[in-house]
Amino acid sequence: MQKDDTQSQLEWQLKPDLQKQGQTSKINGINHKGDTETFAVITERPLTLFLNDMELITNMSIGDYPEYLAVGYLFNQHIISDKAQIAAIDHDDDLGVVVVRTHEKLDFQKTQSRKIRTSGCAQGTIFDNIIDEIKGRVIENDGKIYQSWLLDLQKKINLQPSLYLQAGAVHGCVLCKENQPLIYMEDVGRHNAIDKIAGYMLMHDIEPHDKIFYTTGRLTSEMVIKTIMMNIPILVSRSGFTDWGVSLARDAGLTLIGRMRGERFMLLSGEQRMVWDAKTAKD
Amino acid sequence: MQKDDTQSQLEWQLKPDLQKQGQTSKINGINHKGDTETFAVITERPLTLFLNDMELITNMSIGDYPEYLAVGYLFNQHIISDKAQIAAIDHDDDLGVVVVRTHEKLDFQKTQSRKIRTSGCAQGTIFDNIIDEIKGRVIENDGKIYQSWLLDLQKKINLQPSLYLQAGAVHGCVLCKENQPLIYMEDVGRHNAIDKIAGYMLMHDIEPHDKIFYTTGRLTSEMVIKTIMMNIPILVSRSGFTDWGVSLARDAGLTLIGRMRGERFMLLSGEQRMVWDAKTAKD
Repeated sequence: MQKDDTQSQLEWQLKPDLQKQGQTSKINGINHKGDTETFAVITERPLTLFLNDMELITNMSIGDYPEYLAVGYLFNQHIISDKAQIAAIDHDDDLGVVVVRTHEKLDFQKTQSRKIRTSGCAQGTIFDNIIDEIKGRVIENDGKIYQSWLLDLQKKINLQPSLYLQAGAVHGCVLCKENQPLIYMEDVGRHNAIDKIAGYMLMHDIEPHDKIFYTTGRLTSEMVIKTIMMNIPILVSRSGFTDWGVSLARDAGLTLIGRMRGERFMLLSGEQRMVWDAKTAKD
Repeated sequence: MQKDDTQSQLEWQLKPDLQKQGQTSKINGINHKGDTETFAVITERPLTLFLNDMELITNMSIGDYPEYLAVGYLFNQHIISDKAQIAAIDHDDDLGVVVVRTHEKLDFQKTQSRKIRTSGCAQGTIFDNIIDEIKGRVIENDGKIYQSWLLDLQKKINLQPSLYLQAGAVHGCVLCKENQPLIYMEDVGRHNAIDKIAGYMLMHDIEPHDKIFYTTGRLTSEMVIKTIMMNIPILVSRSGFTDWGVSLARDAGLTLIGRMRGERFMLLSGEQRMVWDAKTAKD
C-alpha cells in the first residue's frame, strides 16, 4: 500500500497530457459568418475489452489509458477486486483491443449469466448484479470536506490545461485529497473517465477513504454506484443529479454534492462530513 | 403516410408534459449557506426491453413514453424497419418492462450473434453491425436549413417549459420543420430522447426528409448514426462534436451543425443545404 501523502506534499500526480498523440485531430468547419476555421476536435474510437478469451464490451473512448480503463471497468463491475488477480494486460492500439488476463478463471466467466444494463448518455453500462451488490454497502464514516476546499478545487481544476479547454466534448473526473487535485482523467464518456481513475487507483494502491471525487458530469445512478464501489466517501459535481442517484448515495452514507458553481452548491447526502468553514456559510 | 404540414400550419405536436406523473420527485438538500431547500429532481428508473421472449436491454429512463422508446430503439438498431412488423406493445409500469411483439420471428432472434457495443455518457448502446449498416448509406440530397431558422428554433425551444428548466439533469431532442419545433422529448440519456422521437416518427408515419433534428447533447458517433438511420438530413446541436461523429456525417452527406449558441455555430458537413440568409453571414 502506497504511503499517503501528507498535506504539505500534496500535488498533482497525473494531469491531462495534451502532447499525447491521437487524442485530438484537426478539422475544418464553417463558422456562422461563412468563414472556414480549423480547430481541434476530440478523437473517439472503439476499444474492445476482453477478459481472458471472452469479449466483454466495446467502449468509445479517447484511448489515452486503455489499461487503466480496462482494469477500472472490471473493478467497478465487481469482476475483479484485487490487482493480484491480474496476470497481464495486453493492449493492441491498431486493433483497438485490450485484453486483461487473470491467473484464475473468474466466476463471472463460469456463469456468464449477468445481463448488461445500460442507457444512453446518463448511464453507460452496468451488470444486473451490481445493483444487488451495492445494497447494504455503507461507506466508512471517515473523510471530511471543508467548504473552502470546494472553491480551491474548482479553481485548480478549471485552470488546469485540459482536453476540454482544448477541444471540448469530453467529461472530466478528478481524484482529490483535501484541497488538491491529484489525478485528472478525461474521456468522451464520464464513465470511462471514472473507470480510468479506478484502474489507476487499483494499480497504484491508492487509498480511497480520504479522497474526494470530482466530476463535471451529472450524478446519475451509475456514477454514484461506481463511487461506492471505489469506496470514496465524497462525490462532487458541478452538474445536476437524479432522484435515484441521491437515493443510492443516502443509503450508502456517501456525501453527495451537486450543482457546484463557484460558492454555490447543493449538499444532498452525508452532511456529517461537511465542515462549514467558508464565509458565505449561514450568512 | 401522414400528409405533411404546410408552412403556415406548422405547430408543436408534442411538448414536454410537465403534469405527467413520476417524471420528477421532490427532495431536500442543503445549499451553500447551510439552509434546507426543497426542489424537483429528475426521476431515473430502469426500463427493460423485451423483443418477443428475448430480453434485449435495460435502459435508465424518465419513463414517460416507454412504447416510443422501445420501438425507436429497435428501429435505430435496425432490428425493425416497419411498423407493420409490430403485432403489439405491452408496457407494465410496476415491473418496468416493455415488450414489443412482432408478427414474425426476426433474424436478429434467430442468430443472436450481434454484440452489444456501448460506452459511457457519450454513446449508449449500438450493435456491432450498425457500423457496417451505416457504411455506404447516403442521406437523400433534399432538405434546406436557413440560417435564420437556427435562431428561431433556439428561441422557441429555449422558451418552451421543459423538464430541463424544471429539474435539470436531462437532455432534450427536438424534431423540427423549417423554423418550427414539432416534437420535443427529454430523457436522462440523449439516446433515449432520440429513440423516443424515432419511435414516434415510425408509429405516426412522419416523413423525415424535410425535417431538422435538434439536440442539446454532444454530436458523438452514436447520435450521428441514429440520425442517419432515421433519414433526417440535418442534425443540429448546441454542444460539441467528436472527430468520428463529423467523419460519419460527411460520409453520409448529413448536414451537421455544432456549438450553436445564439447567432454562432459551426457547420461541419453538408454545406449544400445551408442558406445564408441571416445578417451576420459574411459580415
